[in-house]
Amino acid sequence: MGLLSEGLTQIVIPLSALVGIGFALLQWFLVSKVKVSTAFGSEHNGYKDRLIEEDQEEGATSFLFTQYRYLGVFMGVFGLIIFLFLGSVKGFSTKTEPCTYNTGNTCKPALANAFFTTVAFLLGALTSVLSGFLGMKIATYANARTTLEARKGVGKAFTTAFRSGAVMGFLLAANGLLVLFVSINLFKLYYGDDWEGLYESITGYGLGGSSMALFGRVGGGIYTKAADVGADLVGKVERNIPEDDPRNPAVIADNVGDNVGDIAGMGSDLFGSYAESSCAALFVASISSFGINHDYVAMSYPLIISSMGIVVCLITTLFATDLLEIKSVSEIEPSLKRQLLISTILMTVGIAAVTFIALPSEFTLFNFGTTKAVKNWHLFSCVSIGLWAGLVIGYITEYYTSNAYSPVQDVADSCRTGAATNVIFGLALGYKSVIIPIFAIAIAIYVSFSLAAMYGIAVAALGMLSTIATGLAIDAYGPISDNAGGIAEMAGMSHEIRERTDALDAAGNTTAAIGKGFAIGSAALVSLALFGAYVSRAGIQSVDVLTPKVFIGLIVGAMLPYWFSAMTMKSVGSAALKMVEEVRRQFNTIPGLMEGTAKPDYATCVKISTDASLREMIPPGALVMLTPLIAGTFFGVETLAGILAGSLVSGVQVAISASNTGGAWDNAKKYIEAGVSEHAKALGPKGSDAHKAAVIGDTIGDPLKDTSGPSLNILIKLMAVESLVFAPFFAAHGGLIFKWL
Amino acid sequence: MGLLSEGLTQIVIPLSALVGIGFALLQWFLVSKVKVSTAFGSEHNGYKDRLIEEDQEEGATSFLFTQYRYLGVFMGVFGLIIFLFLGSVKGFSTKTEPCTYNTGNTCKPALANAFFTTVAFLLGALTSVLSGFLGMKIATYANARTTLEARKGVGKAFTTAFRSGAVMGFLLAANGLLVLFVSINLFKLYYGDDWEGLYESITGYGLGGSSMALFGRVGGGIYTKAADVGADLVGKVERNIPEDDPRNPAVIADNVGDNVGDIAGMGSDLFGSYAESSCAALFVASISSFGINHDYVAMSYPLIISSMGIVVCLITTLFATDLLEIKSVSEIEPSLKRQLLISTILMTVGIAAVTFIALPSEFTLFNFGTTKAVKNWHLFSCVSIGLWAGLVIGYITEYYTSNAYSPVQDVADSCRTGAATNVIFGLALGYKSVIIPIFAIAIAIYVSFSLAAMYGIAVAALGMLSTIATGLAIDAYGPISDNAGGIAEMAGMSHEIRERTDALDAAGNTTAAIGKGFAIGSAALVSLALFGAYVSRAGIQSVDVLTPKVFIGLIVGAMLPYWFSAMTMKSVGSAALKMVEEVRRQFNTIPGLMEGTAKPDYATCVKISTDASLREMIPPGALVMLTPLIAGTFFGVETLAGILAGSLVSGVQVAISASNTGGAWDNAKKYIEAGVSEHAKALGPKGSDAHKAAVIGDTIGDPLKDTSGPSLNILIKLMAVESLVFAPFFAAHGGLIFKWL
Repeated sequence: MGLLSEGLTQIVIPLSALVGIGFALLQWFLVSKVKVSTAFGSEHNGYKDRLIEEDQEEGATSFLFTQYRYLGVFMGVFGLIIFLFLGSVKGFSTKTEPCTYNTGNTCKPALANAFFTTVAFLLGALTSVLSGFLGMKIATYANARTTLEARKGVGKAFTTAFRSGAVMGFLLAANGLLVLFVSINLFKLYYGDDWEGLYESITGYGLGGSSMALFGRVGGGIYTKAADVGADLVGKVERNIPEDDPRNPAVIADNVGDNVGDIAGMGSDLFGSYAESSCAALFVASISSFGINHDYVAMSYPLIISSMGIVVCLITTLFATDLLEIKSVSEIEPSLKRQLLISTILMTVGIAAVTFIALPSEFTLFNFGTTKAVKNWHLFSCVSIGLWAGLVIGYITEYYTSNAYSPVQDVADSCRTGAATNVIFGLALGYKSVIIPIFAIAIAIYVSFSLAAMYGIAVAALGMLSTIATGLAIDAYGPISDNAGGIAEMAGMSHEIRERTDALDAAGNTTAAIGKGFAIGSAALVSLALFGAYVSRAGIQSVDVLTPKVFIGLIVGAMLPYWFSAMTMKSVGSAALKMVEEVRRQFNTIPGLMEGTAKPDYATCVKISTDASLREMIPPGALVMLTPLIAGTFFGVETLAGILAGSLVSGVQVAISASNTGGAWDNAKKYIEAGVSEHAKALGPKGSDAHKAAVIGDTIGDPLKDTSGPSLNILIKLMAVESLVFAPFFAAHGGLIFKWL
Repeated sequence: MGLLSEGLTQIVIPLSALVGIGFALLQWFLVSKVKVSTAFGSEHNGYKDRLIEEDQEEGATSFLFTQYRYLGVFMGVFGLIIFLFLGSVKGFSTKTEPCTYNTGNTCKPALANAFFTTVAFLLGALTSVLSGFLGMKIATYANARTTLEARKGVGKAFTTAFRSGAVMGFLLAANGLLVLFVSINLFKLYYGDDWEGLYESITGYGLGGSSMALFGRVGGGIYTKAADVGADLVGKVERNIPEDDPRNPAVIADNVGDNVGDIAGMGSDLFGSYAESSCAALFVASISSFGINHDYVAMSYPLIISSMGIVVCLITTLFATDLLEIKSVSEIEPSLKRQLLISTILMTVGIAAVTFIALPSEFTLFNFGTTKAVKNWHLFSCVSIGLWAGLVIGYITEYYTSNAYSPVQDVADSCRTGAATNVIFGLALGYKSVIIPIFAIAIAIYVSFSLAAMYGIAVAALGMLSTIATGLAIDAYGPISDNAGGIAEMAGMSHEIRERTDALDAAGNTTAAIGKGFAIGSAALVSLALFGAYVSRAGIQSVDVLTPKVFIGLIVGAMLPYWFSAMTMKSVGSAALKMVEEVRRQFNTIPGLMEGTAKPDYATCVKISTDASLREMIPPGALVMLTPLIAGTFFGVETLAGILAGSLVSGVQVAISASNTGGAWDNAKKYIEAGVSEHAKALGPKGSDAHKAAVIGDTIGDPLKDTSGPSLNILIKLMAVESLVFAPFFAAHGGLIFKWL
């Protein structure tokens, strides 16, 4: 047994969650001290003051509520499906069953598991929606305040943007932990000693979180990029007006999009990863010696790691906001990078501490039909290697997407010969950027898999996500800075202020790419852990590529990310075409629009984005949600296992390359615009042929980096967690086609 | 036993090969009746007559010979590696060994296998080089003759181009079969009854063929696309001169490139697929009851299928050249499509015939440690399903890349809003075009795998490739027509003739895409068959995704196509940048060039392409050739198995999407240029904004469809056949790192 007592564990976990929430509120309070009401008092061009905050927030709130209506229907229907499918496993019998792993004991009936899984699904879905919504609220609240602080200097603006990001990061991390902790304890009132059933039901929490994240990412991604691409194509390319110029009819839709896509979508996404990796770890632990022996403290190891993560991130945040002040533009990116390094180093110590306190020195784990003896320092290694693999992925992503290094500069240089070479170089950069992250993931998988089987993978994923509060803070910082720049432009603020917000934004582009890198890396580990949990739960002994059932699953699974990307890219393209036509129509038919004397019709553009995103999020959503159900029901558990493995190994590559290609194009354009070096000056200025080529690349990259790329990590996680939840059904009734043949 | 006697088999196979060669020579004779010498007698602008044939052929020959010098070194070094690695399996012992499968008998020493594998490797490599070289010679011979015939009408021009393609198709198919047949019989003089060793050594033939194909595809692909992209970017986009205009300094390099990349490279590639699928089938058969019982006729089943294929393709060709004459432009594409359908239907009958004649009604196959009883109609089903899956892939590829259908028209339509939407739509189209081919491949795999294990997969691949002569004919037809158009432009022929060659070319673009579809589809099946053979030979019982060794192989393998594509795309991009600068320099510094009074310096452009392709083909070549060696030696046979499976399932997707995206962009541009429909006219004419956007898409597509995409199918095949050849070494001495850990 470890050093920590059960009672203390019951206190430590919720306490750290509450500390995290308190810290988030403190940061919010500090941000709120910047007063907005007086600052934008002057009426300018007749409409600009309205744009600053209310329009964005109204637009985002109204979109999210419309989206939530759709999601509410989905939650109801899918909740029912879960209940019916899982309930039917034992024919809706209310009799208790002999346990599967904890032999000799009796467990609760399958019907109870169906009910509690449904409840957990709804809880996860609601927490995810809440996370996204809170993130959006904070971001819209922070945008204008960041702009105002930019008048005082780049350091103040940075602190405001970063604090706001931290509000979101800590709220999400703490909230996710708290809801999970409370749910487990409430479920336990019913389940008592049946930990198998308890943690089986809890997996519904991950499914709920992740399915909401899918729609958030896809819907938000289509929304934001339809508006962004449409605004850029007419505004920047045809009309030669700056980005975020209030004369552009799509500007409000664009800014709303940043909040619903990059903030709300990303918040739901990372919350989903966190929920899933916790559920995967808990489920695998429940069928190991921790669960069989009812060792509560060791069982809670995943939650204790997350608790420690909140404390570590809290200290890390102070380095950015209080201990080390930003004085010049060039310090922004290093400061954000330093956050990653500090949190990783501190967390390594933290992991060592909790591992040796919470875990017995040796225990046994379940490993696909056999058992495996594991020492506590093995688990320390697993969590740490996940954590450090995340750091490597973050730094490599930064290298390939920041314009401070040669890869992006090469892409910018290729704009000399036009858009075609820019695209060729950008695609090549994205492909290349996959190499090292995949090796990092492979090493993390090999080590944790070898040391502690699927539990090792699950805690490695948790390790990568343990610093999620910091990760989210620097990730949310990006769109907040982006919109702060938009507000500065719309409010007609001075060139100097716009330059400061641009510098914040350029660093934000890179951190957004880093955030996506983390999301994808952790998704790979989480999916593998969920895959392992699924295989255990479905009672599969091996997933042998040399059987036809598995191989066809593998190749079809590897195809799914392409199918999914085709849908989302085409959706953005079609919606952008409509947006372009509308923006052109307004410029051509509204007199005085170009001169700034007439107000554009923002609402129509917002409606185009809203309609497109709600309509177009359904087919890709259906693809992801239905594939495991169809494959499991008709082709059985082995083919589904193949599909999960195939989509995992293929999707990771597509996701990383898409998101880095897009990030690189965006920053190549910014590199030319900023014109800091001799080389950059030779390519610029804005409006030069090279710059025009760069804008085309940037526009192509938008759906890659903000719609299809980041949605793919949800695809791979969600299919895995859904398979895990439905595994008992597939094992009992699945494989109809092969049974019939 | 079947109905065919051993003696008759020994006659039938070489006879059909000789018939194929005879038919190819007949077609050549018919093409040669078009006389060139007098037709281009007139001196026009002082340099045009020189361009017609000699420059192209000289350029191509000189490039190929330079490339062959490099390849000669490679062949020597790699041949030595094969000999040393395989020889070391039993410590270079000259003692005979007990057989592995044919228990109780003695087999030849491992050293003999090492020696004969090396010989087979060299034979395969030389046959591949010869195939590519002959293809190039025929193509350059045919180009000008097609142009001349275009003066008489589109039907005559089509027949000439198609006959020339047929020369290549039949020469390659027949030659490949003949060399393989002769080698087997010669090797048999030494091996006698040791069929295990005999067919183990023969696998070297596939490795030789495929490794030459890799360098041919990659080197040729970089050559042709550096020239093409460079010529287009300055000529079409900046200077507004037509494609293939003799004033463009890169025009000769561009045309030479078509011959060395699309013709020689593609010829080597499909020859490689054919050689590998034959070797895979023969190897698997040799360890089944066919081999154990020394049933020569049944063993020769793969060769008999290919023999029947030659006869079927011969009849099919007559439909295009003699039975049904082309009268108008609109009949070209249907006629080419009809070739596919006719050959598939006839071949299905042919397969039924040879299956029931050559095979016993029931026999046993080896299936990873167990045996499996198989009936002859099972094998008929396997070969047929491969054949028909090929047809489905061909037709789907046509649907997604021909501008007669809505997908390409949608892409063309998206050019209204600029290059960015064109690229987004084109990428989405490529992703989408993966779906049905993957399902077709998956079904073919499931059926043939279930019916006849890995032998089923191998003969399914052979089925898809059985009509290779027709496939190659319609594929080679494409670049021949393309260059015929180039010659018409360069010779300043009338607008009418250029229109005819353009129509031939547009159909050629689609058939080239279909050919690539076939190449990729067959590569998927061939790789899987080789993978199965490798697993058998390495003595692996299962490739379980749930073991860390296999899983890391899977994810790293899935990454390799990206790494490889990054290298090849970047190579084309860099070489194109240099080409653009040289072409710009010539236009700026050579007085009278734009006016057509001075001759450009073609040689410098040829040199840029040559140097770039020779230098840049080495890193991707090394990646492919070294990965199996490093993985097998250091990480062992299981990790290598994971790598092969991962690169297969991921590479197929990347290859199909890249090649279809590129084909679609090319034809979207041609759609706008041709302006046949109202819609197309609204987007055009040449030089409109939409057309400019389409040209950018076309340029981006060039390296995707002609360099990285088609090279990827060689990557997956080559790694598999190399692993198969080296399997005994890896099984004996591999996995150093894990042994050390």
